[in-house]
Amino acid sequence: MTSAFPLSKDQLTQLVQHHPTPFHLYDEKAMLENVARLHAAFAWNRGFKEYFAVKATPNPFILKLLLAAGLGMDCSALAELELADLCGARGEEIMFTSNNTPAVEYQRAHDLGAIINLDDISHLSYLQREVRLPELLSFRLNPGDLLGGSEIIGKPKEAKFGLTVAQLFEAYRTAKAQGVTRFGLHTMPISNELDKTYFVRTVDLLLDLVLQVHQEIGIEIQFINMGGGIGIPYRPEQVAVDLEWLGSALHDCFARKLSSGKVKPPKLFMECGRFITGPYGYLVTRAIHRKETYRNYIGVDASMADLMRPGMYGAYHHISVAGKEGDAPVGEFDVVGSLCENNDKFAIQRPLPKVDRNDFLIIHDAGAHGHAMGFNYNGKTRAAELLLRTNGEVVQIRRKETLQDLFATLDLAHVARFS
Amino acid sequence: MTSAFPLSKDQLTQLVQHHPTPFHLYDEKAMLENVARLHAAFAWNRGFKEYFAVKATPNPFILKLLLAAGLGMDCSALAELELADLCGARGEEIMFTSNNTPAVEYQRAHDLGAIINLDDISHLSYLQREVRLPELLSFRLNPGDLLGGSEIIGKPKEAKFGLTVAQLFEAYRTAKAQGVTRFGLHTMPISNELDKTYFVRTVDLLLDLVLQVHQEIGIEIQFINMGGGIGIPYRPEQVAVDLEWLGSALHDCFARKLSSGKVKPPKLFMECGRFITGPYGYLVTRAIHRKETYRNYIGVDASMADLMRPGMYGAYHHISVAGKEGDAPVGEFDVVGSLCENNDKFAIQRPLPKVDRNDFLIIHDAGAHGHAMGFNYNGKTRAAELLLRTNGEVVQIRRKETLQDLFATLDLAHVARFS
Repeated sequence: MTSAFPLSKDQLTQLVQHHPTPFHLYDEKAMLENVARLHAAFAWNRGFKEYFAVKATPNPFILKLLLAAGLGMDCSALAELELADLCGARGEEIMFTSNNTPAVEYQRAHDLGAIINLDDISHLSYLQREVRLPELLSFRLNPGDLLGGSEIIGKPKEAKFGLTVAQLFEAYRTAKAQGVTRFGLHTMPISNELDKTYFVRTVDLLLDLVLQVHQEIGIEIQFINMGGGIGIPYRPEQVAVDLEWLGSALHDCFARKLSSGKVKPPKLFMECGRFITGPYGYLVTRAIHRKETYRNYIGVDASMADLMRPGMYGAYHHISVAGKEGDAPVGEFDVVGSLCENNDKFAIQRPLPKVDRNDFLIIHDAGAHGHAMGFNYNGKTRAAELLLRTNGEVVQIRRKETLQDLFATLDLAHVARFS
Repeated sequence: MTSAFPLSKDQLTQLVQHHPTPFHLYDEKAMLENVARLHAAFAWNRGFKEYFAVKATPNPFILKLLLAAGLGMDCSALAELELADLCGARGEEIMFTSNNTPAVEYQRAHDLGAIINLDDISHLSYLQREVRLPELLSFRLNPGDLLGGSEIIGKPKEAKFGLTVAQLFEAYRTAKAQGVTRFGLHTMPISNELDKTYFVRTVDLLLDLVLQVHQEIGIEIQFINMGGGIGIPYRPEQVAVDLEWLGSALHDCFARKLSSGKVKPPKLFMECGRFITGPYGYLVTRAIHRKETYRNYIGVDASMADLMRPGMYGAYHHISVAGKEGDAPVGEFDVVGSLCENNDKFAIQRPLPKVDRNDFLIIHDAGAHGHAMGFNYNGKTRAAELLLRTNGEVVQIRRKETLQDLFATLDLAHVARFS
């Protein structure tokens, strides 16, 4: 079941007088209610923290809201560290989970006091040489075959991320010997997963490793970061992961695994992105053309430059038509943008009600990996982002790109005299 | 067979003192030699013109070179029309082949005197109402089943582009009745095709339609635009389309089809992008890390933000290591960027010679749909573009993006006071 778009057709008609389509609209109230549910479900764990995956929605207005709601910032690269800093995230509110990392990014993470999560055993000496080893260090596990396959992403063994189990133990030993005093353990084997039991298996594995590391190396791991990957129901018939069930199941898992009392229960961290913002962001676009050839088409004023997932992954995004939510479908339509690429389609052969020119099409679940993945192919400029505040006010939180932005990296005076 | 990278390792070592990796490098000499071959192969056709698909390499320095070499500009959207204008393209040197087109873009194309190529029959009345019908008009045919299948892109019937044959005839009739006096015919059923016979079949079909339209409607079509789609040999074992063969085969085709003398031979237009710039642009990157887990990895300082094709399409791009072109492979490696996406891989299990830190990796055939498709996901900034002039000089033709560029659409003062 996808979230209900929070504005009526009349409200949209008002809104576009100041903010022409296409635009992304985020629903603050729904987003914060979801965060509150998450926190309630995991209140049993002292120190529970969700580090929001900045890459999903790298808008500082959204990030400030999430920080204020108690979330940390999961950063994967320099620009995301800068955004976290800009938004006021401090020290261990920031998790730096990168891969193939250049030294300059480790330096910035270190300067910010972020938790550094190493993706490879060779980065232990690299970090020490190029920056220095911090007091607290985390390692990213690639679970290989340990968690079984997943239907949604490929096999962990084919993923570039993380350390093998053998490397993980070697890394803790070496880091301990080199004076690191506090430790974390991280994994992120999955993406957009709706099978809630997968996360229980993940935490189960991580706690086994916590116990083993304690027994073999004498290290008490202070936190386990189970990664992100909690999926969202993109399709109307899909069911969201039951947060209360998951919280309770992981609570049981902690109790069962740690019953001996030999190690102190670690803090539980997550780094979800999609789950936090995905369902609460919408791409709002208008129908500008209809076309009938071998299929029926609805042409809209947004394009894959604003939302790549359908074109890139063949992903499903639900589409509703403002004011026609209850209308019966009148046929199947391809909903297309104007890129000169045949994968610039928001939907293929989708049953839709009668769509008239200027109707608003709402593309759901675009709040994560939506604007963030946009590009400028075919000279497209990326859309604005708007935030529907809890009080009903709409504020612009990123302006639309202009042709000037597109040409900003060109030296036009040089072009003029070039031959 | 892929093109040979034009600089030695020593020259690269010099170059990076002023232009740090990663960057795109275009080879002017090789590019213009290829254009000269194209013109020679089609010199038999009076009025032959290749309209360069701006979307492939939307850099005005490159566009100016191509214009000076006699190419036209094939534009698909507003920004590309602006670029063509900026580069000095005038009137019918510009072809505007768009789809799902907003009125503002038709207006700009009309103001520039560009050849307008309509993608849908309904756009005839739309153009007339919103702008006006020009003296010269072209229509884009979707050949449906007429050209048989293609292995490389999907079936034309599943493509959003073009008019059906029935609509095409209706469109010519209507346009003629409404005062249009000059006509063109366009199709673009294929992309990156190495089967040279496909293009002969395409021109064969277009000429049949020219004859039929003449007979049934009394219109002499002035040009046929066979589209782009001439592929390039991304893989070393692939063979480039033989231009001389193709020129000769199409010459024969014209002679055979038009032997009755009833219609004047139309001008032959093309709108290749990839074929013009693809093989003559390289993404130059350096090895920054090696990683050994379940596979062997070489981490480089470029990412899919600089070249999306491998990540988006699973496309093959040849990789050579500067100074080690003749070395035997020492193993298979995944060549990866630093995005937090497992598809950020330039190559998967690719046999490569021993790669040391700081070695230059040359990613071939990145001259088209390379920089142009880049994005800012994970806060990545897109690389600079450099041009190797015919005289051996290297000039920067687009600077690298900065974090300031990335944040340009944010109101940072508003962020600071936002809560």
